[in-house]
Amino acid sequence: MKPSTPKGTRDFTPSQMRKRDYLFGVLREHFQKFGYAPIETPAMENLSTLTGKYGEEGDQLLFKVLNNGDFLAKADAAALEARYSKTAVASLSKRGLRYDLTVPFARFVVQHQNELSFPFKRYAIQPVWRADRPQKGRYQEFYQCDADVVGSDSLVYEAELVRLFERVYTALGLRVVIRINHRGILAGLAEIAGAKDKFIEVVTAIDKLDKIGAERVGEELQSKGMSAAGATQLLEMLTESSLEKWTDSLAETDEGKHGAAELKKVLGLVAAMNPDQRVEFDPTLARGLSYYTGCIFEVVVDTTVPGQENIKMGSIGGGGRYANLTEAFGGRDMSGVGISFGAERIYDVLEEMDAWPDTVRTGRKILLAAMDEENLAWAFAKTDELRSAGIAADCYPDAGKPKKPMKYADKEQIPFVALIGSREREAEQLSVKELATGE
Amino acid sequence: MKPSTPKGTRDFTPSQMRKRDYLFGVLREHFQKFGYAPIETPAMENLSTLTGKYGEEGDQLLFKVLNNGDFLAKADAAALEARYSKTAVASLSKRGLRYDLTVPFARFVVQHQNELSFPFKRYAIQPVWRADRPQKGRYQEFYQCDADVVGSDSLVYEAELVRLFERVYTALGLRVVIRINHRGILAGLAEIAGAKDKFIEVVTAIDKLDKIGAERVGEELQSKGMSAAGATQLLEMLTESSLEKWTDSLAETDEGKHGAAELKKVLGLVAAMNPDQRVEFDPTLARGLSYYTGCIFEVVVDTTVPGQENIKMGSIGGGGRYANLTEAFGGRDMSGVGISFGAERIYDVLEEMDAWPDTVRTGRKILLAAMDEENLAWAFAKTDELRSAGIAADCYPDAGKPKKPMKYADKEQIPFVALIGSREREAEQLSVKELATGE
Repeated sequence: MKPSTPKGTRDFTPSQMRKRDYLFGVLREHFQKFGYAPIETPAMENLSTLTGKYGEEGDQLLFKVLNNGDFLAKADAAALEARYSKTAVASLSKRGLRYDLTVPFARFVVQHQNELSFPFKRYAIQPVWRADRPQKGRYQEFYQCDADVVGSDSLVYEAELVRLFERVYTALGLRVVIRINHRGILAGLAEIAGAKDKFIEVVTAIDKLDKIGAERVGEELQSKGMSAAGATQLLEMLTESSLEKWTDSLAETDEGKHGAAELKKVLGLVAAMNPDQRVEFDPTLARGLSYYTGCIFEVVVDTTVPGQENIKMGSIGGGGRYANLTEAFGGRDMSGVGISFGAERIYDVLEEMDAWPDTVRTGRKILLAAMDEENLAWAFAKTDELRSAGIAADCYPDAGKPKKPMKYADKEQIPFVALIGSREREAEQLSVKELATGE
Repeated sequence: MKPSTPKGTRDFTPSQMRKRDYLFGVLREHFQKFGYAPIETPAMENLSTLTGKYGEEGDQLLFKVLNNGDFLAKADAAALEARYSKTAVASLSKRGLRYDLTVPFARFVVQHQNELSFPFKRYAIQPVWRADRPQKGRYQEFYQCDADVVGSDSLVYEAELVRLFERVYTALGLRVVIRINHRGILAGLAEIAGAKDKFIEVVTAIDKLDKIGAERVGEELQSKGMSAAGATQLLEMLTESSLEKWTDSLAETDEGKHGAAELKKVLGLVAAMNPDQRVEFDPTLARGLSYYTGCIFEVVVDTTVPGQENIKMGSIGGGGRYANLTEAFGGRDMSGVGISFGAERIYDVLEEMDAWPDTVRTGRKILLAAMDEENLAWAFAKTDELRSAGIAADCYPDAGKPKKPMKYADKEQIPFVALIGSREREAEQLSVKELATGE
């Protein structure tokens, strides 16, 4: 019997955990500095909370927890008889594992609304579970890291979140491009191209530009009933990246005008803080528009920066403004804006660039080792003194020749070793060897 | 529809999270200083990993995750037909939620044994799930915090873990008593009292001394077939708390002699470090002896200390030496010793004593608020400057009269507010008001 984790899940070893803790630590530090407060929700939610929030595909990817005890006693007999899993599940399971952090957050806001002050700014760093087919880089358990503010429609928060992106990635040693767009821009575009009633089809097609190119997007637009002229006009407009020009082009559409004005304001606030960051208006950015109602963001690695040219990775962050976070839970009308850091992908990028700080290499600074039994207690007491002085120290548990502790320190990348014999104990002095230099 | 968390589970609001983060932070800091490395295992384990490790009662308290997709297609038809849940479950679920951190740790050690160096010292701070009937203070999801070392039988680690207990509780502002005993002491006692073959019955009875008193424990011992004289002798010996006297009494029993000698060595190592801590040999300590094979520990609040007299709480920490952690997973014979911090109970004690540091009160140090629209961008830019200087700052999103931001700061316990009008902006100066003093 060879023990293993379930398919699609992973253990994290100490060397991985030190890197993950560093990454989450940088996120946490910045979330807090920006005034976001931590919350946690339970791993299990009622299925009534989760179901129907992620589309039909999402519902099928929910992990469902079997009811406890004699669960068959209350099961839907007809569904069992007919072996109809989809119907039976409601009577066999009433809880599921968290699928993302957004739906639990919405539930949390409604449930605790009387305890909270609005605007409410929260962050969460927790695992989520999805019964996706496991493949390279895709797991059934992975962490999400979200920051959201709800209860205000002030554009100050859009600017703040762009800045938060920039501060975090900079702290991690990554140069990124932050792309920004607005639902209104795309709505105005659809209107001008004569497809106002086909907004979702238009953005779905535009979202594929990167992958399939303009020609095939044009074909898709036409297959959805758009005129050839409209499709051509639309694709041509999308090559324009000046917000000023878009503002002019969309001046006659309400949504377009509104979107361009909001974007301009956000970009102005952002520019006042950090002219060094690449924040780019990208009219082709069309992510999550079944959900987002205002600004939308996406972060990618800046591959024009030396050392980052070869990083092949999609978006490592994203977010946007949404209108009615709490609607599904009967909460009052509440606008919000939020961002997600793609922590698992950021980890992979940092790994590829070997951009980890030295501190993640080992948890221990020094290993003390007694050369003979009579000095072991002294070595142990000295280890304890070092710890009390704030130094992560360890004592090799068995007295004896240096070979074993030296090998252990080497494998564990503990940078210093102190070998302790009677001479050291009598002199009350440690002689410390640095393994890297041998000194 | 009133949304809620599933029965027995909880949300943690920002004010609770700040306290929990502080508590876990103290634990993490000390684990690391003592040379323990972090690991994480997935929330879901294969049921083959979990089942049979916690006794029959434990098996029933495991949360089982329903297989994905058309789970009834592969279900045990006969068991479904007969509505026999216990048999059906194996064909409906192959994964369960982590029930503790020990079994996943054992599985981890075997699975990764070739990547690890031994002795392997790890800590883990993760939630576990148990389908217990929820009641006050008992939840279906709660955190465990464990530190273990495996692959060495050196008693240095027993002493180290006692010290780790002491350092953590002291850092949290709690004075505790650390009780220590040894399986050998109880085995020797059973032998002397003529009940060598009734070890488990003897320790099960002794474990109830606190709850039901000596008389009823005596009755229980006799009901298990012990002679009246043996029971009386055993109970009398247990009133003796001098390890020296126990050493003498048990000199003729192999296990007793061994246990007393080990305890003496551990207590000697501990005493050399911190004579200030109450570490007490307690021969009546009889916890977890179906599992522990050497020293056993238990930590309780020291109610003789001023300010702690009224704390009613059982054990807030415990642990011990075990023999074959990895046996169930086919691992090689490996001794280990580990401790657990009862984080949820420690939280309750700190709450009752109001022993939290000031830092948990709020995440934000200062709130900036613009009195009119034209100063909002400037207020926002200043907020950003404060954040860049390492100060957790926030900007109230709407310009206007001071009433709303002041009320918000008050409710959120943000200690300082800066109101920003044109005068401040022109002078490039913030005037900061401390809410507590009004200055």
